[in-house]
Amino acid sequence: MTQNVYDNPEFFAGYSALPRSIHGLDGAPEWPALRAMLPELRGRRVVDLGCGFGWFCRFAREAGARQVLGIDVSENMLARAREMTSDRAIGYRRADLETLTLDDAAFDLVYSSLTLHYLDKLAVLFRQIHRTLVAGGRFVFSIEHPIYTAPDRPGWRTEDNREVWAVDRYLDEGPRTTDWLAKGVVKHHRTIATYLNLLIAAGFSILRMEEWGPTDDQVAAHPEWACERERPPFLLVAAAR
Amino acid sequence: MTQNVYDNPEFFAGYSALPRSIHGLDGAPEWPALRAMLPELRGRRVVDLGCGFGWFCRFAREAGARQVLGIDVSENMLARAREMTSDRAIGYRRADLETLTLDDAAFDLVYSSLTLHYLDKLAVLFRQIHRTLVAGGRFVFSIEHPIYTAPDRPGWRTEDNREVWAVDRYLDEGPRTTDWLAKGVVKHHRTIATYLNLLIAAGFSILRMEEWGPTDDQVAAHPEWACERERPPFLLVAAAR
Repeated sequence: MTQNVYDNPEFFAGYSALPRSIHGLDGAPEWPALRAMLPELRGRRVVDLGCGFGWFCRFAREAGARQVLGIDVSENMLARAREMTSDRAIGYRRADLETLTLDDAAFDLVYSSLTLHYLDKLAVLFRQIHRTLVAGGRFVFSIEHPIYTAPDRPGWRTEDNREVWAVDRYLDEGPRTTDWLAKGVVKHHRTIATYLNLLIAAGFSILRMEEWGPTDDQVAAHPEWACERERPPFLLVAAAR
Repeated sequence: MTQNVYDNPEFFAGYSALPRSIHGLDGAPEWPALRAMLPELRGRRVVDLGCGFGWFCRFAREAGARQVLGIDVSENMLARAREMTSDRAIGYRRADLETLTLDDAAFDLVYSSLTLHYLDKLAVLFRQIHRTLVAGGRFVFSIEHPIYTAPDRPGWRTEDNREVWAVDRYLDEGPRTTDWLAKGVVKHHRTIATYLNLLIAAGFSILRMEEWGPTDDQVAAHPEWACERERPPFLLVAAAR
């Protein structure tokens, strides 16, 4: 059973105050890069794993998707997602992604943003995702980058007025407990190789990978983001069935 | 033009004294993992890019390869490789991999060990490798891991009696000058994403990736290698045409 930290009131309050919660996709600096990895959405059936407040579900509909399903483990988030649309082509469903079952060949795109690193087990889910895609369907997702999730004590160290990111335990896969927005948030560290090899074992072809950091324009607008180019915070992957 | 550091006498002397130079493949701790990514060699035509002393070329012949070509930029290394075999099915050729041309559909396997991070430009080489492989042929290579090549000042830092690896400049691709075996050795840092996206753009399918660190048994035999599990020193990739 996945830790449902989004229904922890302290975490939910903190998460709700993040730019990406208030401003939606445009509040997420990696969104332009992730969007560029999406296939054409017009007429497609889309499922969003870890849909949160439903920003991507609404985006997909606006981009012409025929049918959109948002899945999340958090009642709090789904309640707010439901409040924000009356579009009958968007549906929401509560489920734990580790035990999720999806219909065969039911979707053209499976999307997931910053969710999979909360899951302990991925192999079964990746096989479910493969099954629920039509031939040629796409799986596009972002996760926290393994350089970011690996360390025992994640954080910057200052050396000679420069920021360096201290990596340890990179090859030691498993849970990491951090105090991000609330105490005791559990994320599951896996190497990049493990993510890719699990995808390949599930039958996917890798189409593209991005180790995301802010662009020069983004750093100019937000100088405090410059350090994110020293080590990427996010990993974006596009794969095809 | 690639820096030909192997023909620098100081570097060559230092390199010749490494375990992997004296003991060959068995002196390279990542070899069992790389070997496990190879296809069956019996009857196959094999080319080794950056063949050095020819250890892999001789291994491939012993494993039944029909014809083996070793390519390297270093005269010193090729001279020693030639001394070590009289097998007429093994040939050696001097070439700069950045300007290498290979015949179409001439090989079943292209192999490269710890060489590609010396090259400034890879896109043209990857297209050459794709062209020279038969359909279904394999490209299996190792490189220094981007976590290892990224930092401005690569090295361990000690914190609370633990070793951490200080990463910076990960997204800033380009040359890094280090003093490994000789002064001013130039390696070219690229992200993992860039390696994979260049392979995919050249037409390859990614089959497997390993972020290599020593196994528990290897650490038991060489306790000084334990830190290599904190961040992987090598990246191994298998791809198919």
